[in-house]
Amino acid sequence: MNTHTMKMVTIICEALAREPILRLLKQAGAHGFTLFRVEGAGDKGVRTADMEEFSNIQIQVIVPPDVAEKLLARLEKEFFSRFGIVVYESDVRVLRPHKF
Amino acid sequence: MNTHTMKMVTIICEALAREPILRLLKQAGAHGFTLFRVEGAGDKGVRTADMEEFSNIQIQVIVPPDVAEKLLARLEKEFFSRFGIVVYESDVRVLRPHKF
Amino acid sequence: MNTHTMKMVTIICEALAREPILRLLKQAGAHGFTLFRVEGAGDKGVRTADMEEFSNIQIQVIVPPDVAEKLLARLEKEFFSRFGIVVYESDVRVLRPHKF
Repeated sequence: MNTHTMKMVTIICEALAREPILRLLKQAGAHGFTLFRVEGAGDKGVRTADMEEFSNIQIQVIVPPDVAEKLLARLEKEFFSRFGIVVYESDVRVLRPHKF
Repeated sequence: MNTHTMKMVTIICEALAREPILRLLKQAGAHGFTLFRVEGAGDKGVRTADMEEFSNIQIQVIVPPDVAEKLLARLEKEFFSRFGIVVYESDVRVLRPHKF
Repeated sequence: MNTHTMKMVTIICEALAREPILRLLKQAGAHGFTLFRVEGAGDKGVRTADMEEFSNIQIQVIVPPDVAEKLLARLEKEFFSRFGIVVYESDVRVLRPHKF
């Protein structure tokens, strides 16, 4: 199979950060995303998934390396001080790289 | 720890594609899977997780490299033109490789 | 961006194993976790996400390599014979490594 290495950027954050993050993904050039609700605990304490507005969400986006770089830089600069947020990047191999 | 590198194949698709994809996983030799509902947006527009039959699902399966290869080939040939679908592969390290 | 490679340990298990696993994560030195409900099938049969107490959960935790090693060893020793459980490890790159 002819696969291509891309970056997956995963963002785990307060549900309150949803709209500004989706806007940022679009501005940075991401063509799609996946989102689901999660429970979590970190240095801000425990968050359950029971109440929508207080729950955490996990957002995943597959992008070329240069877009990933841009995303991480803007997330760090614009979101880390304002929201409970964890961001990580990993390598994935996709078919049809022009889709991302 | 004695870990073994395997392939994780992740499939994000319309809930409608669920049964044919689970059948394909079985035929290709996968021994298990994980599945959960997600929201998403891609080049087919936005999908929320509110209505089960219109939502997207994310399916994850851990398999040996040869099974991953076979899976990707069949997904591309049999599903890409019929369903809204994203497929990617990544490396994971497992204990008890005989389980996969 | 100044990213740091860490280990993500993913645990897919019966919901019944939730509390002992969260205790283990804490004891092993993990500073946070993400958890969500999944459906799955493996060599123990199919599990749906409909009934909370019988469903499976997926737990993700990002830790330094030495903590990952300790976690895998204890999961293998203390959980594999008692619960339906799948564990895998992968590499992720994070900002702010002191958080993990």
